[in-house]
Amino acid sequence: MRIRSAVWLFLLPTIAVSLALDGGQGIKASAPLASWRDNDAKKAITEYVLRVTDEKSPDFVPAPERIAVFDNDGTLWPENPMPFQLAFALDELKRRLPEEPAWKDDAMVQAALEGDLPTLLADHYKGLFHIFALTGSGMTTVEFAVRVRNWLATAKHPRFHRPYDQLAYQPMLELLQYLRDNGFKTFIVSGGGADFMRVFSERVYGIPPEQVVGSNARTVYELRDDGPVLVKTLDHLFVDDGPGKPVGIHQFIGRRPIACFGNSDGDLQMLEYTTIDNTRPSLGVIIHHTDAEREYAYDAKPKSSGKLVTALADAPKRGWIVVDMKNDWAEVFTP
Amino acid sequence: MRIRSAVWLFLLPTIAVSLALDGGQGIKASAPLASWRDNDAKKAITEYVLRVTDEKSPDFVPAPERIAVFDNDGTLWPENPMPFQLAFALDELKRRLPEEPAWKDDAMVQAALEGDLPTLLADHYKGLFHIFALTGSGMTTVEFAVRVRNWLATAKHPRFHRPYDQLAYQPMLELLQYLRDNGFKTFIVSGGGADFMRVFSERVYGIPPEQVVGSNARTVYELRDDGPVLVKTLDHLFVDDGPGKPVGIHQFIGRRPIACFGNSDGDLQMLEYTTIDNTRPSLGVIIHHTDAEREYAYDAKPKSSGKLVTALADAPKRGWIVVDMKNDWAEVFTP
Repeated sequence: MRIRSAVWLFLLPTIAVSLALDGGQGIKASAPLASWRDNDAKKAITEYVLRVTDEKSPDFVPAPERIAVFDNDGTLWPENPMPFQLAFALDELKRRLPEEPAWKDDAMVQAALEGDLPTLLADHYKGLFHIFALTGSGMTTVEFAVRVRNWLATAKHPRFHRPYDQLAYQPMLELLQYLRDNGFKTFIVSGGGADFMRVFSERVYGIPPEQVVGSNARTVYELRDDGPVLVKTLDHLFVDDGPGKPVGIHQFIGRRPIACFGNSDGDLQMLEYTTIDNTRPSLGVIIHHTDAEREYAYDAKPKSSGKLVTALADAPKRGWIVVDMKNDWAEVFTP
Repeated sequence: MRIRSAVWLFLLPTIAVSLALDGGQGIKASAPLASWRDNDAKKAITEYVLRVTDEKSPDFVPAPERIAVFDNDGTLWPENPMPFQLAFALDELKRRLPEEPAWKDDAMVQAALEGDLPTLLADHYKGLFHIFALTGSGMTTVEFAVRVRNWLATAKHPRFHRPYDQLAYQPMLELLQYLRDNGFKTFIVSGGGADFMRVFSERVYGIPPEQVVGSNARTVYELRDDGPVLVKTLDHLFVDDGPGKPVGIHQFIGRRPIACFGNSDGDLQMLEYTTIDNTRPSLGVIIHHTDAEREYAYDAKPKSSGKLVTALADAPKRGWIVVDMKNDWAEVFTP
C-alpha cells in the first residue's frame, strides 16, 4: 500500500502536466465558461473549439493556425457612454488645458470640453481625430504610456463607478482564457489606439502588446542624451476599423484568423475575412448589446463604433453566432 | 528492486516534461549551440541567457519581456551576391516579361535585366523600389505568396547551388532555438518585405508570420465573388531599416527588446534601442562577415544593407558582442 501510494504521487504531476500541455481539455474543460448560460451561443463556441482541436477530426486545425481576433470596444469592454479612449482624451484636455493656452481658441477643444459629440464626430470624425492628435502625439511613447497609466489609476466610469480597466466583460475574459487553454493565440484587432490598449492589455486580458493590433501612426526615432526614444506623430495614420481591420490583420499577423469576435459594423469586414471561403473551419461571433439593465441596449446607434446593422443582418447567411448579452451571459462584469 | 524500477519509470516522464517546460535548462543546455566554437562570443551569449533566466539573479527578466529581435539578410542568411529578395524580384521580371510588353521601355527594368545594380541603387534606391513595386504589388497577398513559394522551390543560389531557403546559418538556427528554449520570443526585424519573409519564416526559422516585422505597404480589402482578398499596393510604404527598425519594433511589438542581433549599420538604431539605458539587462550582437572561404568577407560594402562601419566602431563603447564568423562558427550552413 505504501509503495502504491508512492507510485501514485509520482504519477500525479505527470497527469497534471500533460493536462496542462494538451490545452486543458480534460479536467479544466468541464467548466470553462462559467459566466455563460448553457444556451446555443455557448454550445456553438465550445463545439467549434472541440472540433478544431480534436486531432482525429477532419476539421482539426494545427495550433499555429489557431488565430483568434477580438474587437475591443463593445466586445471586450463597454463603449458607452463613449469609447473609453475618448474619455481619456477629454480628461487629458482638461488636465493639460492650463499649460496649453492656445487650446482656448480651438473650436474642437471647446466642443470637446462642452461634451458636444456631434460637432466632434461631424465630417468623418474630423474633430475627434484632432482631439486624439492633441492628446496622443508630440510626446514620447513612454510619456504617453505613463499618462494612460495615471488616468486608469484615477478615473472612474460615470455609471459603474469603477476604474475603466475593471469593466472588462467577465464572460469574455473566460472566453479568452478558454481559447488560449485550447492552443489559440488571442489578438485584439480594434479601432482604438494600439499605444493606448497596450498599456493594460496584458494585465487585463492576458494579451501581450505584440498581439494588439490597433489604430496607429508612425513614430520618429531619436537618440537623446538620456537614451533612445520614439516620438509619437500622426503621420501615416492607420485607422484600424471597418475594411481597415483585415488590412491590419494582414499587416500585423500575416495570416487569416479562424475565429473572430466583434460587436459592430466596424467588425463586418474582419468577420468576412475570417469566415468566408476560409480553407479552415471558422467561427464568427457578434456580441449583441441587449441588456439595458446590467449594461446597455443598442444596435443601430448613429455612430460607427456602435452601429450594428449590416453585420446583424448578414449573420444568418454567414453562419455568425449572435450572443444575446441579456440572455446568454449570467454575469456581465467581474463581481 | 522491481518496485524501484517502476517508480523510476513514472518519474522519468515527469523529469522530461519539467525540463521541457523550464526552457530546456538542464540536459538540453549541455550542448545548445553545437556549431559555435567555445570562444568569447558564445560565452557572452550563454552567460547573458543564464543571467536573465535565473530567478535568483538580480538580473532576472520575466519571460513575457524576453523579446529577441533578429535582422534577416546577413544575420540569419547571406545577403550576397545580392539580397535574396532582389534575386527573386529579378527572376520575377524575367518570368513575367513576355506578358508585360510595357516593361520593354522601362529603363529600370532594363537595368535590372542587365544586372546594372549601380543604376538600380542610385538616387536612394529609386530603381530598386520601382522593381519591387512591379513585382510586389498589384496582386493579392495570396497570389504573391504563391509566387515566392514557387521561386523558392525552383531557384538556386549561384555560388552555393542550393535553394535559397536552405542557406540559413546553422549557428543562428541553433541560437534561435536556444533562446526559445529559454523562454525568449524570437522576432525578425528586417528591411526585407514582410510578405516575402512570412512565406518561409515559420518553416525555416521557426518564427511564425506574426513575429515577422519587415518593410511593408498598405493593402486594400475587397470582398470578391470568390471570397475576401487583400490587394498589395505601395501606399504608405514603410522601409523597416536603420532608424525605421525601432519604429517598426514599437509599432509591431510594442515593447523594447532585451536582445538584438544584426550585421550592418542598418541595424545600428535597433541595437541602440535594445541596449542603451534599457531598464532590463540587454544583449547586442553583431554578426561580422569575415569568412571569404566558407561565405563572404566584408564590412564596408558601399551599400546600405551590407555596410558595417558605425556599428562596428560603436561596439566596444556599447558593449556589443562581435561574432567573427570565421573563428566563432564551426559550421556556417547546415551540412
